[in-house]
Amino acid sequence: MTLETISTAKSFEGTQGVYRHKSEACACDMTFAVFLPPQAAKGPVPVLWYLSGLTCTHQNVMDKGEYRRAAAELGIAIVCPDTSPRGETIADEKDNWQFGSGAGFYLDATQAPYAAHYRMATYIAEELPALVAQNFPVDLTRQGIFGHSMGGHGAITLALKHPGRFKSVSAFAPIVQPSTAGWSQPAFEKYLGPNEMAWRAYDSTLLIEDGYRVPELLVDQGTADGFLDDGLRPWLLEDACRKAGIALTLNMRDGYDHSYFFISTFMADHIGWHAERLKG
Amino acid sequence: MTLETISTAKSFEGTQGVYRHKSEACACDMTFAVFLPPQAAKGPVPVLWYLSGLTCTHQNVMDKGEYRRAAAELGIAIVCPDTSPRGETIADEKDNWQFGSGAGFYLDATQAPYAAHYRMATYIAEELPALVAQNFPVDLTRQGIFGHSMGGHGAITLALKHPGRFKSVSAFAPIVQPSTAGWSQPAFEKYLGPNEMAWRAYDSTLLIEDGYRVPELLVDQGTADGFLDDGLRPWLLEDACRKAGIALTLNMRDGYDHSYFFISTFMADHIGWHAERLKG
Repeated sequence: MTLETISTAKSFEGTQGVYRHKSEACACDMTFAVFLPPQAAKGPVPVLWYLSGLTCTHQNVMDKGEYRRAAAELGIAIVCPDTSPRGETIADEKDNWQFGSGAGFYLDATQAPYAAHYRMATYIAEELPALVAQNFPVDLTRQGIFGHSMGGHGAITLALKHPGRFKSVSAFAPIVQPSTAGWSQPAFEKYLGPNEMAWRAYDSTLLIEDGYRVPELLVDQGTADGFLDDGLRPWLLEDACRKAGIALTLNMRDGYDHSYFFISTFMADHIGWHAERLKG
Repeated sequence: MTLETISTAKSFEGTQGVYRHKSEACACDMTFAVFLPPQAAKGPVPVLWYLSGLTCTHQNVMDKGEYRRAAAELGIAIVCPDTSPRGETIADEKDNWQFGSGAGFYLDATQAPYAAHYRMATYIAEELPALVAQNFPVDLTRQGIFGHSMGGHGAITLALKHPGRFKSVSAFAPIVQPSTAGWSQPAFEKYLGPNEMAWRAYDSTLLIEDGYRVPELLVDQGTADGFLDDGLRPWLLEDACRKAGIALTLNMRDGYDHSYFFISTFMADHIGWHAERLKG
């Protein structure tokens, strides 16, 4: 697996890099960002996966997420993947921001023509960790995962479906039940077909209903988020966690919206929370 | 002077806003960003002006500068103006990133056709402070100024030419002698005409030679900055300050480039340095 370096820059005494590779899972070139903290010069460091939301690439959180100060202080690598396969030949709906490019939903599509490329679950869970471990000084026995919106959905579902792999999981404004939310249900149907049973495998609250577990979960959600009622609905996660005995910390943040102005505000809190669980 | 609110978002318990107004100085609509820290809810706060570099608008540093955490902690408003007049009818050289739109150089042009709009010195020094003071809870007796690259040039020249107005001035990778640098001298000639004496009024090192003074100056400069020799040349500032008895702190930062990855790394240091001088 060869890796092409697109750019590197020193930042907070560490290195922010952007890399490209031919993805087997997605059958196209994929780009991702890695921040290595200064501690990585002395040996493997814990790794925290950040999954981005709809319309984003690897770059949005790299530019606006303000994760480097805390990651450098705490000695944690941050990996930021793209949110979908991309390319001229890849099936897409160019005017639809909730499907196709920028909207992979961290699932493996089963329906033609999407199944040929939209395999983000396998990409994030299998291919990318192997590639990162081979090319960067990270310790895969100490992994955490977090994300925003669609990426919060991705982080929680991946943690639920890979018990023991992630020592910590958190989210900013996650889509907690995408298979029934107005803005994501159509994508689930196109990627996974009409059988709603297949949708449960990529839905946080329904996975919890079906017995999947993480020991604890941190979520921050802005009260002025315009997508609260139609897309996000954190109360569904709260209810599922209560019934399942999952220790959910849900911080409702007064007056915050869905933007990176919100994410960046609580980024250091989340990285600190992960660091406590990754240091052991 | 009426102000149109383009957007506001809560961030770090303060408010990041973007505003537009009809500028008299530039004879066009101008856009700028203001971050108000939470302390502004209780009364006027000090204000720190951030001037951006070539090609930037108000938005680049707002997205990538990572100034809000420190500004919120220290109770300082941050104002980020645009870098030039803009508009379909405004004289420009579309393929030239070092002149025209995005490259106002914080001077008042005297040559046709540029003199009609390119009046950034008056805009930043006179019109914008009056507008900001009228619309936001800021204390103009406690002002600091800083900037990056072309904006570092802007910050230092404005502080030199308005003695006593700014309690603090600093810069990231400033163009310290734009009237002789390969990448800015052509712009000076087009904006100000062929008489080199007119250029001195907008050139930090030459203003210092001509007797203008600030008590002290903080500059951070990356050693891996690709523009070091052709555009920035901090040693010229070092030499001018030594001769003039100006207390310059010049931090050469090993391995850092010219990007926001560099700026954001040292942003909190600079805001802290300003805060010490603005609190009195």
